[in-house]
Parts: sequence; structure tokens; C-alpha cells
Amino acid sequence: MNEGEAARFITLEGGEGAGKSTQIARLKEWLEGRGHTVVTTREPGGSSGAEMIRKLLVEGPADRWDGKTEALLHFAARRDHLRATVWPALKRGAWVVSDRFADSTRAYQGYGHGLDLAELEALYNIAVGPFRPDLTVILDLPVEVGLARAAARRGVETRYETLPRSFHDRVRAGFLEIARSEPGRCVVIDANRDIESVAGDVARTVGERLESV
Amino acid sequence: MNEGEAARFITLEGGEGAGKSTQIARLKEWLEGRGHTVVTTREPGGSSGAEMIRKLLVEGPADRWDGKTEALLHFAARRDHLRATVWPALKRGAWVVSDRFADSTRAYQGYGHGLDLAELEALYNIAVGPFRPDLTVILDLPVEVGLARAAARRGVETRYETLPRSFHDRVRAGFLEIARSEPGRCVVIDANRDIESVAGDVARTVGERLESV
Repeated sequence: MNEGEAARFITLEGGEGAGKSTQIARLKEWLEGRGHTVVTTREPGGSSGAEMIRKLLVEGPADRWDGKTEALLHFAARRDHLRATVWPALKRGAWVVSDRFADSTRAYQGYGHGLDLAELEALYNIAVGPFRPDLTVILDLPVEVGLARAAARRGVETRYETLPRSFHDRVRAGFLEIARSEPGRCVVIDANRDIESVAGDVARTVGERLESV
Repeated sequence: MNEGEAARFITLEGGEGAGKSTQIARLKEWLEGRGHTVVTTREPGGSSGAEMIRKLLVEGPADRWDGKTEALLHFAARRDHLRATVWPALKRGAWVVSDRFADSTRAYQGYGHGLDLAELEALYNIAVGPFRPDLTVILDLPVEVGLARAAARRGVETRYETLPRSFHDRVRAGFLEIARSEPGRCVVIDANRDIESVAGDVARTVGERLESV
């Protein structure tokens, strides 16, 4: 870390199969190559308490919880993740890159399940407070491409993937709407390309948005 | 059920060792003796999803979660409990008696852990909506008596009991404050007496408040 340089919180968002974990590994390498200390993490999860909540969210039948219960569980996990992992890392001066954050709750429970977006913002303010990501990269790709990629690596965490196609359409549209409404924080990158091209765009975006300021 | 008689939702509240489960069993018998169908349940828990969340809340070290994360988990469990157990039972015409409900969140996370009571009300309105118990019986007894009783039956669910004495003092004061602020819904009963005396008062209260209307 250079003297006086602020730690940054970057979130990668997108639907199933968008390539977030691959791109996060690449972004970590790129940032480390530029001398930053990097902590990569994920939601739901990213701390021991939040990982226990994650198991409740990503396993089991699709109708195990309704959208509101899901949102409450996500914000409980998010607060634990922030307190145990993200905030301490930023305080140490590390850059933190998270695979999903609150935009996933907005896209999946809000746009996907039809939850009131104002209620989700109220939950955000209670659970998280004024803290926001410095940059959110939304990896966008056609739903059918993402679901096919996700199917190829299918394990036990299939709860969201088994929801109907129309749900995933709403999730994708939701992410794009979030990006339109918060252009200062969000950048959309076309993820329907080879890994190298996407990684190049992600690194360029991070450099332009965060390193030049 | 008599024709036209409404189903009722009764909650029993109080600190550790207040005798809630004993009194709920007695109240169930008493209500059944008067021809009501009765479902007894508990929080956190009372449905398969909520029982999974309960395990996260009542086991493990006392500092596993902070107060806000706990509150979010309680409201997630509460919503599942209402959707899967309480609301369907009331719809069938059963009386529902719950061992703890939202007043426990107010007393433990609000008065006990110092969470903003207005934020807890906002969470209630998001998670539960306008639904409220028809009657809440608060079993009150000195903290030292309750903790001694709880210690005698100590199992794995000790997370709250290991919190300091001052915490339990605030919880007791919180329950009494809730009762003062909502006298139309809440009744405080002295639980530092033999089981028969307390059961008699609980039955009399339920009869006066709910059966005579």
C-alpha cells in the first residue's frame, strides 16, 4: 500500500454462470501485481457465521423460503460478513473484492421475486448503514448462456438455478436497471466473451475508476 | 369451535426460567377443555425452516452474532414460522399459543443489546406486516430466580443464559416497559409462585380478555 492510499471495496455481480469467480481470481492477480493487498470473499457467506446462513439459502428446495425471508437471511449474513471479514480487511488497508453483495439481493429478491425495493433499501440501511461499495462490476450475459454454464458445474448449490427462466430474465433486467440508476458506482461489462477479454475490461475499469482518483 | 368464534393468537413471554413451556402446556389443556382446537409452538423456531435458524441463534458462543444480526435472523425465522405454522393454523380456526414472539426480540435485542427500538419496529413491519398477537402474557420473576431455574435444566441451548446478569436485568425491565406501553395487548403475571397459582392467573386472564369479547 502506498502512503495515504485508501483501501477499496469492489463487488462483482451478475446472474448464474456469469464467470464471477474466474474474474475475481484474475482481478486479484492483477491488483496484487500492482502492489495491493487483496482479500477475495463471497456472498452469501464470507465469514464463518455467514457461511452457516449460506447453507440455508443455497441448498434445499426452491420454495424453502419466500422472498422476504430470503432477504432477511441475506442481510443477516451480509452484516456478519461485513463485521467479521470486509470491514476489518479494509481497516488493515487491504482491497476487498466480493463475489456478490447487496445488488444480488436487489436483483434476485427485488426484481426476481417482486419484493418491494423500498423495503430492501430499508433493510440495507438497518443492516449495513451508510457503507457502500466503491465500485460494482456487473458481468452481463444472456440468461440461456449463463444457465448452460452453471449447469456444467452443478453441485449441491442448485436452489437458484432451478427457478424458472422468467425469474432469471427479471434478475438480469434488474442488474441492468441498478447499473442505470447508479452509474457512479456501477459498470456493466459484456461477459459473453472469452475470459481474457472480460478480464481485460474488468482490470481497465478498476484502474480507471479507482486507481486514477 | 363455536360458529363465528374467531381463532386467537396468544404469546407467552418472559426471561429465562420464567416457566413458559410449563404454563403453555397447562393453558393448552385448559383451552381444549373449553372446546378449542389449540396449536402450541415456539420461537425462535416453530417451523422446519425456523428451527434451522434457531440452531444458529441458541447454540454456540454468546458473541457469535451482534445484536443486529441476531434481530435479522429472528425476523427471518419469525416470518417462516408465521407463514408455515401460525397463519395456516389460525386460518383453520385453531387457537395458537406461542412460547415467545416479537416481544422477545424487543426485550433481548432492543432493551438487552441496546438496538434501536424504531429499527426493530421497522423490521417487524417489513417481516410481519400489520399482524399482532391478540394477547401477550408476560411471566415476570426476579432474574436470579429465573437463572437458577434455567441452570437446573441446562442443555446445549445456553447461549443467552451465559450473558451477564446486567443483560438479563435489562431484558426484564424491557418486558415490563412493553407491557406498560401496550396494556390492551399485554398482561404481566407474577411467575415467582407455584405452577398452580400462575396457571390459574393465566387461564383467568385468557378467559377475561379473549373469551368474554
